[in-house]
Amino acid sequence: MGKIEDALEIIKRGTDEILLEEGLIEKLKSNKPLVVKAGFDPTAPDLHLGHTVLINKLRQFQDLGHDIHFLIGDFTGMIGDPTGKNVTRQPLTKEQVLGNAQTYKKQVFKILDEEKTTVVFNSQWMAKMDAADLIKLASNQTVARMLERDDFSKRYSSGQPIAIHEFLYPLIQGYDSVALTADIELGGTDQKFNLLMGRELQKSNGQTPQVVLTMPILEGLDGVQKMSKSLNNYIGVSDSPDDMFGKIMSVSDELMWRYFELLSFRPMAEIQQFKTDIDNGTNPRDIKFLLAKEIITRFHDEASAEKSQQNFIDRFKKGKIPDEMDEFEMQSTDGGLGIAYIIKDAGMTNSTGEAIRMIKQGAVKIDGEKVLESRITIENNTTKVYQVGKRKFAKVTII
Amino acid sequence: MGKIEDALEIIKRGTDEILLEEGLIEKLKSNKPLVVKAGFDPTAPDLHLGHTVLINKLRQFQDLGHDIHFLIGDFTGMIGDPTGKNVTRQPLTKEQVLGNAQTYKKQVFKILDEEKTTVVFNSQWMAKMDAADLIKLASNQTVARMLERDDFSKRYSSGQPIAIHEFLYPLIQGYDSVALTADIELGGTDQKFNLLMGRELQKSNGQTPQVVLTMPILEGLDGVQKMSKSLNNYIGVSDSPDDMFGKIMSVSDELMWRYFELLSFRPMAEIQQFKTDIDNGTNPRDIKFLLAKEIITRFHDEASAEKSQQNFIDRFKKGKIPDEMDEFEMQSTDGGLGIAYIIKDAGMTNSTGEAIRMIKQGAVKIDGEKVLESRITIENNTTKVYQVGKRKFAKVTII
Repeated sequence: MGKIEDALEIIKRGTDEILLEEGLIEKLKSNKPLVVKAGFDPTAPDLHLGHTVLINKLRQFQDLGHDIHFLIGDFTGMIGDPTGKNVTRQPLTKEQVLGNAQTYKKQVFKILDEEKTTVVFNSQWMAKMDAADLIKLASNQTVARMLERDDFSKRYSSGQPIAIHEFLYPLIQGYDSVALTADIELGGTDQKFNLLMGRELQKSNGQTPQVVLTMPILEGLDGVQKMSKSLNNYIGVSDSPDDMFGKIMSVSDELMWRYFELLSFRPMAEIQQFKTDIDNGTNPRDIKFLLAKEIITRFHDEASAEKSQQNFIDRFKKGKIPDEMDEFEMQSTDGGLGIAYIIKDAGMTNSTGEAIRMIKQGAVKIDGEKVLESRITIENNTTKVYQVGKRKFAKVTII
Repeated sequence: MGKIEDALEIIKRGTDEILLEEGLIEKLKSNKPLVVKAGFDPTAPDLHLGHTVLINKLRQFQDLGHDIHFLIGDFTGMIGDPTGKNVTRQPLTKEQVLGNAQTYKKQVFKILDEEKTTVVFNSQWMAKMDAADLIKLASNQTVARMLERDDFSKRYSSGQPIAIHEFLYPLIQGYDSVALTADIELGGTDQKFNLLMGRELQKSNGQTPQVVLTMPILEGLDGVQKMSKSLNNYIGVSDSPDDMFGKIMSVSDELMWRYFELLSFRPMAEIQQFKTDIDNGTNPRDIKFLLAKEIITRFHDEASAEKSQQNFIDRFKKGKIPDEMDEFEMQSTDGGLGIAYIIKDAGMTNSTGEAIRMIKQGAVKIDGEKVLESRITIENNTTKVYQVGKRKFAKVTII
């Protein structure tokens, strides 16, 4: 039982919800490798650290000796959006699905052990289903229950159309659990409804229902909104070591602890010790270095991690960018501020005209990168280091 | 154009609604045989005259030279009720479907010309559909539109469950029209929503939408409720000639005109003439004879029709049952009244005890049939002739 308690502690780390914990304990007691399922959209294989929260949890299950099933939902992906209204959901060809799967694998096997991971495509069983089978599947759920799902309920009450096939997709996701006889399914908190569907369908198919485990949505670099490409607050798993290092170093100390919990594989006890160290005077930056190096080592290698740290130190320590500089908050009434305006307003030039000339002369850098185009707009909710010439620096946050 | 006007008059006879009449005129103008579709439930081939209202209309289209497609919805019939909650909707086997189809044919070909009727089963195209095809079909309609259907809307708002596959059935019925490239679909007024679904799916499949023609629900012998087996107010197409004759003669004069319009193939002008005849003194009973004979000739033959009329006259005319007798209305506080109570209350015996003795002696008849069981309850909304001994008669209506 000691072993089960240890396993539970690892499983619960960072987890949002476990439904039901009794079921999980029951399954762990069996002392057999459990079938752990997580489903992935075949259209978007370009991962950022937000996506890896779930994959990290899969890795923890893998380390505990369980069977990871990485499920690619290609069946519905190959149907696309039949209404044709959603141009971004074009039907994928078999070739595109396989191509995307390769991209997925390249990325996730930086975290998961390839040898111990089963990659499955749900077209394997769904393509064999005929219309009558799907009707029987659909009979398992009621319209009222489906309209309880948060997004459906909102769309229905606000008069936005819900096409009927959208009610079938959660059932198919649920049926995937039946096909795999999944013991545990992982998903984001926004997937809870669909994950519970798997439980219900397994019950009506005479299986022991899977345990549902939801992982939180990771905050982006701003610490407020969820990490996402469109918000440009993300760290991509394919980002260069230097980019990763810079981005991780830019997060707040508070967010660092969140990232440690969800993105690091260091034991929680060790992370707790880091907090104590900081309370006793350790520079938080040095602890952040450890997080950055761990993540870069995972997605690149240890040598790159060391080098990116050195590059960072070179830029910030060896006088190129000072440790301390003036900090400003500037308010935008629009989506952002023009770079020339920012430089002038931070007092680094006397006029926007001078700022434009400096940019054209190649004397302006943002976060250490030379900028030659003067008409750039810097987006809101960004904090960047602006440099004019060799000695003028300012850290500006646009709100 | 004169021909089209004549056709329209025939088509409109008794029809509840035509959607859209312009479309119908357009199609009639093409001067080609039109594909006329009507769908039938494969589980209930035991027809009564209420069902024949629709089949009569098909016959009129057939006489106008159009192609009748008698569609048996066996695909969903063979699925049954997958929730298993509805024990009366057991899945049918292929053999049962074919057996029921034979029973249907035997009955409907008393009305339709077998040579000119195409019997089709929708499993022909639906069994070829896979889950992906059905998903695409389901994408054609929204949840909100489906919940507009009267019975769905009532069930949803009263919290009764609607299983998701129930949303798929109207789509399948609609798709049948696409598969047949139907020009016209007939159905009961209660089918209007499903019939319109055919129009929508044909449009999204690039077909000219079918014209929808709804027929009213026929009232039963009571003239109030719809004709139905469970209300015991029906005339079955397999009823004996004498039963048919007796039942038709029992309807009110007002209902007779309704039956003439919907069940007779006599031209409306002729029926109008009958009304004039009655206004001029013709006994309505003699006109009712004509209706009874027409219907019995249709489902049996002319000789049987003549004979059943003679039997009826014998019973009622030749002194066995008098033309004139006391008439009573008795009020029931329940589902009906006991036979002994009725006889006593009509003054034909002095007590219910005497009534019971007379029944046991075989001296009591109801509608000319001897009754030996004294504990019979006579249902509400029935009018029957009660006879005790040779000379005591009373016509009693229980309300």
